[in-house]
Amino acid sequence: MDIDILKVSERLKLDEVDIKKAFERKIISFDMYHNKKYLLFKKKLRHIERGTVLFLNNNMDIVMGYPKIRRAMMLYPTLKNYFINKIVVEEKLDGYNVRITKIDNKVMAITRGGRICPFTTKKALKFLNVNILDDYPNLMLCGEMIGLNNPYVPHYYPEVNNILIKSDKNNNKKTKIIENLGFYIFDVRYRETNKPLSISEKEELLQKYELPYVKPIGIFNKEDIEHIKKIILTLNDKKREGVVLKDPDMIINPIKYTTHYTQCNDLSVAFRYMYDLGIDFMFSRLVREGYQSFEFNEDEKEMEKRAKNIGKSILYPMVNSIKNISKGELITEDFEIYLDSEEDLNEFLDYLKKLHIAFVVKENQKFENGMHKVKIGRIYNSTNDKIKSHLDGNLW
Amino acid sequence: MDIDILKVSERLKLDEVDIKKAFERKIISFDMYHNKKYLLFKKKLRHIERGTVLFLNNNMDIVMGYPKIRRAMMLYPTLKNYFINKIVVEEKLDGYNVRITKIDNKVMAITRGGRICPFTTKKALKFLNVNILDDYPNLMLCGEMIGLNNPYVPHYYPEVNNILIKSDKNNNKKTKIIENLGFYIFDVRYRETNKPLSISEKEELLQKYELPYVKPIGIFNKEDIEHIKKIILTLNDKKREGVVLKDPDMIINPIKYTTHYTQCNDLSVAFRYMYDLGIDFMFSRLVREGYQSFEFNEDEKEMEKRAKNIGKSILYPMVNSIKNISKGELITEDFEIYLDSEEDLNEFLDYLKKLHIAFVVKENQKFENGMHKVKIGRIYNSTNDKIKSHLDGNLW
Repeated sequence: MDIDILKVSERLKLDEVDIKKAFERKIISFDMYHNKKYLLFKKKLRHIERGTVLFLNNNMDIVMGYPKIRRAMMLYPTLKNYFINKIVVEEKLDGYNVRITKIDNKVMAITRGGRICPFTTKKALKFLNVNILDDYPNLMLCGEMIGLNNPYVPHYYPEVNNILIKSDKNNNKKTKIIENLGFYIFDVRYRETNKPLSISEKEELLQKYELPYVKPIGIFNKEDIEHIKKIILTLNDKKREGVVLKDPDMIINPIKYTTHYTQCNDLSVAFRYMYDLGIDFMFSRLVREGYQSFEFNEDEKEMEKRAKNIGKSILYPMVNSIKNISKGELITEDFEIYLDSEEDLNEFLDYLKKLHIAFVVKENQKFENGMHKVKIGRIYNSTNDKIKSHLDGNLW
Repeated sequence: MDIDILKVSERLKLDEVDIKKAFERKIISFDMYHNKKYLLFKKKLRHIERGTVLFLNNNMDIVMGYPKIRRAMMLYPTLKNYFINKIVVEEKLDGYNVRITKIDNKVMAITRGGRICPFTTKKALKFLNVNILDDYPNLMLCGEMIGLNNPYVPHYYPEVNNILIKSDKNNNKKTKIIENLGFYIFDVRYRETNKPLSISEKEELLQKYELPYVKPIGIFNKEDIEHIKKIILTLNDKKREGVVLKDPDMIINPIKYTTHYTQCNDLSVAFRYMYDLGIDFMFSRLVREGYQSFEFNEDEKEMEKRAKNIGKSILYPMVNSIKNISKGELITEDFEIYLDSEEDLNEFLDYLKKLHIAFVVKENQKFENGMHKVKIGRIYNSTNDKIKSHLDGNLW
């Protein structure tokens, strides 16, 4: 392709030499979605966030990458030091980060990494009244796609059940087909600058357009750590991920804090695919547990319970994977998604191939309205190969 | 210093260019012990093992590094595939690997990494009848220094209590001074080639010189995994490290296998100094637990017990370190050693400084016979600094 480096340089305020080097090092990639050509940033480069998209259209439209949200290891004194006065507590949902924008009259859903995802784009168009983007073309809707029926972070949320088919005559059954999938906006930002609306501006605007958003759990004084701790414990009991803490005016970046439940859940995923998921990933979850147990001032009994949960989250999925491989099975991470047509299915599978994701289609059920329910298994090659090798008697 | 690269090259059968590069990359270092100059290999280079020492004397004497012992993740089918016929099972002791040699009429103890350690050298001379090295100057005694009173791997072994002083009049007490330290030989090898004696040759020779060595637990057919599993379980109950499995003729390299107890003990050390001990170290211990639980065909109750032990080994030392830092304490790994004189003490402290090990001398008790009991705390800087930073409210 023919990319005008000078124009890119001027538009992004990046040095031409930096851009050329970034191309060579594959920090910047070229991609296309429905004839729309774009550049994407796979890593942060100077002031350009990871996941930033630059459309190669006349305007050279920019959609900035969603900024990294840093983590408090200790609530106290971190919140007191970090925030100005009040803290808005929002629930952190366990799905995947998406930015919705409209460019050249087309609504698109961009993943954290900067890809326009065909699955997410189509679902977003169903869930959202996107008129807002006609009225405010410079805004992007930043939110979390959650639920069991997505291809990235399948995690059940009871509040996002959609009835797709009331009954399916084809199967001669009266089974309801329910999709567990939903989208909640957490930030509204100017897509070129990443400047966010304040919490109140955001709520007002999203209410006006009847858009689903993450409703604040509460607003607290930055010294009121005990209240926030209680929220964490309640969310943990409900098996929810955690919180994002925000300045009401969004003057400073939000920070995050997660529950024991989430740490253990992350660990069990990591140890199911033990040779594929990074060991940094595992270590960081364990360390969080240390600070949380300390900060929550746990007694012997509470610590023992936490330790047991940690140990189980590590050992059980690992032994399970070894057992499965020993039976000759293939270890995959399975997800079931609903697609409107065979065309949509093929488009999504092509997208996965483009991302070099190894997968198998395990089930493909077609309904009479043309809809497909597809079970896709993502293959973790290192885990499969290395466990097999050790079971065959190869040394470490 | 003046090193004749050509001579080194001829002696070690290494390319001159490789040697020059290795110097530049600090794979080869220069060191000195009591006027004996030597080169040491910090990493394996071609056929030269890590820890190899080349003395810069007239003979250019070589002491090869102790070879890496690989690990069986699964006893079955690894042992059946790997061994020829019989397997000699020896206990693996949890101390530090030492090679004892005599060069230019001087007995020296070399650590795994290839340093002549003054502490270990002096203790070896006390524990061992080194006449063997006069009669067989080309042999080296490879063994494990174990016990609580050593500066590297302080781990109590009931069988190595030495009475140093029966009573100390200086203190007006009748307390016995007991040092927990001992040395057990596991291999006798030719120091230039690393060629080992067979198990029977080794036993015969060491018995003749009345030298302490690791006595085989038993000799088994390579198919007799069940017997070896029982040994592992017994060692685990006794809180011992594991086994080294050897071919009786030492035709093939030994391999190792460790107990649940040791995995958990390693984890608790790693998480006490959580930001200093490598996360690869932690991960490898966890993975071993997965294979062991699977191979030992554990039921729900046994798995739960193992999981709880793993979780406790991770969480408890980590919370303990955070607590200690929160009280303003310094986290150190403490060891107590006995030295014969102030001169010996200073020599050892200089040795630690040379290795760039950060430490504090916490206690120094002098006895009337000139002996010193010293408590040294090794400082783990990253763990101290990072925990302090998070407690102060800094973000991840």
